[in-house]
Amino acid sequence: MPELRRDPIIGRWVIISTERGKRPTDYRSEEEPEMGRFCPFCEGHEDKTPPEILAYGDPNREKNKSGWRVRVVPNKFPVLQIEGGINRHGDGMYDKMNGIGAHEVLIESPQHNLEIPNLEDNRVEDIFWAFRDRIIDLRRDVRFEYILIFKNKGAAAGASLTHPHSQLIATPMVPVRVRQEIQGGKQYFEYKERCIFCDMVAQELASNVRVVAENDQFVAFEPFAARFPFETWILPKNHDSHFEDLQKSEALSLSKILKKVLTKIKIVLDDPPYNYIIHNSPLKDAPLPHFHWHIEIMPKLSKIAGFEWGTGFYINPTPPEEAAQFLKEAD
Amino acid sequence: MPELRRDPIIGRWVIISTERGKRPTDYRSEEEPEMGRFCPFCEGHEDKTPPEILAYGDPNREKNKSGWRVRVVPNKFPVLQIEGGINRHGDGMYDKMNGIGAHEVLIESPQHNLEIPNLEDNRVEDIFWAFRDRIIDLRRDVRFEYILIFKNKGAAAGASLTHPHSQLIATPMVPVRVRQEIQGGKQYFEYKERCIFCDMVAQELASNVRVVAENDQFVAFEPFAARFPFETWILPKNHDSHFEDLQKSEALSLSKILKKVLTKIKIVLDDPPYNYIIHNSPLKDAPLPHFHWHIEIMPKLSKIAGFEWGTGFYINPTPPEEAAQFLKEAD
Repeated sequence: MPELRRDPIIGRWVIISTERGKRPTDYRSEEEPEMGRFCPFCEGHEDKTPPEILAYGDPNREKNKSGWRVRVVPNKFPVLQIEGGINRHGDGMYDKMNGIGAHEVLIESPQHNLEIPNLEDNRVEDIFWAFRDRIIDLRRDVRFEYILIFKNKGAAAGASLTHPHSQLIATPMVPVRVRQEIQGGKQYFEYKERCIFCDMVAQELASNVRVVAENDQFVAFEPFAARFPFETWILPKNHDSHFEDLQKSEALSLSKILKKVLTKIKIVLDDPPYNYIIHNSPLKDAPLPHFHWHIEIMPKLSKIAGFEWGTGFYINPTPPEEAAQFLKEAD
Repeated sequence: MPELRRDPIIGRWVIISTERGKRPTDYRSEEEPEMGRFCPFCEGHEDKTPPEILAYGDPNREKNKSGWRVRVVPNKFPVLQIEGGINRHGDGMYDKMNGIGAHEVLIESPQHNLEIPNLEDNRVEDIFWAFRDRIIDLRRDVRFEYILIFKNKGAAAGASLTHPHSQLIATPMVPVRVRQEIQGGKQYFEYKERCIFCDMVAQELASNVRVVAENDQFVAFEPFAARFPFETWILPKNHDSHFEDLQKSEALSLSKILKKVLTKIKIVLDDPPYNYIIHNSPLKDAPLPHFHWHIEIMPKLSKIAGFEWGTGFYINPTPPEEAAQFLKEAD
């Protein structure tokens, strides 16, 4: 059983794989992702993944057979385990709990080489609806406090398979970065009685020096204090703390802007590895006036040195205004 | 002039290189560090670095000539600039200031291949005294709030030269991670009236399952909630919030334990790239009862995926207890 351990100083939870710990020699040869090898995510190979949890496709389709557009399966090598109690307890001054959680993979397309920039708009929409369906289902499990939705694309960004996919991890606690963001938003709200994210959207649209793309319901911009070169955020223009409250009409706008931004990143940076994460509210929170869900996209272009890791103090060699200009012009 | 920008949500400061921003194509070919090429840090090449700020060596030695044991020079490509005023100001809801600071390089040995595990104990001591001297000197500059001391070893850990060296960056604000640690320590102190780091030292020594090395004045252990495999911390056994208050007798103990730990890491992990950082108190703080300076060593073994970056939620595939066992036994 994996373990969740809490750093006593800053309250950060870490997943420790206590089952089969990696030995020193396991780190010497980093595995390369499969290239041209057999792909368990391709259409026709449905029996090579754990049985599916959800799929959109032909209504007459049999489960775990072809004929799907998106498909959600349990991760074959989950970092957290679905069965069991949380059993939060102390160890002297330390805190830990069982590594309980869900770890699922969303296969974005039956085709091996069809990434988001090449999908039809309504196929991108399927991805968001499927994640929303999974959130609605998983939040019934009272053990879970948070659901992380993220994508690792490319080996340098942590992907171990090349077939387009993203992931979901449900955790029994709220990750520290999300907690800090919500806390920061709350402090601003207490002082200003306004949402800090709504204010950012307003200022970015007004100044228009960091905006990358915009449509009726969403805006994409380079954040003012971007940690990484070409870091890009996508926010709904209207205040909304929970991704799963997405309106039907918003889903298409979101799909269009994500596709547009990823296409621009692909063109300008020559198809780079990247990660994105949906920053969402904790599952058990009522609608929050001080937090605004959003997507953070981080192309993996430079090495992160110890300085950055150890201090949370990043050096960004490309000003966000210049990055925005490059991205804005690309099409 | 580089810029320091503050993330309005969580208060994280980022350095933005506004001078000569890296363009998209600059990221496509990551430079490899020099191997066998001309080294500006080697003895005899003193005129190839900016003029030295400090050096220990032969008392009759001429400045910027050979005959030194450690040597501190300004970084030729500083991330912050030493001249100018801070000029902290707003930009709508955002905050920024001029990228004022010091960025220095400490050359740890005149020989190109002599890393800390191969240096005499008192030569390692020189490194710590030189950093202490630089702190004492730089803290006279009222513009500075914090000094970061860190080492990047190996290209994968961010080093651009192979000659043994470490670095110092003086900043006009306190990095967010340090602020959070001090804040966490303070909350614990308010509740327990004890230093959280002192309590950690006591529990680690008593349980003895994560201790890697120990001497009269220092202890090295794998932290309970280690983010990275083989992450190792070194703490003074006696409470001390400021590294620069190091006692004469402590310096030798510190040198011995650092050398021992780095030797163990070199043996067990086959000379891996790594980073270490000294977590110290802010320059203008009086001695703090709730913070304890320490060194955090992070071997660079696995790729950090977007999940980790975006959430501060790390997955560590080697339990710290197992890592401690491997390191303890190596000699």
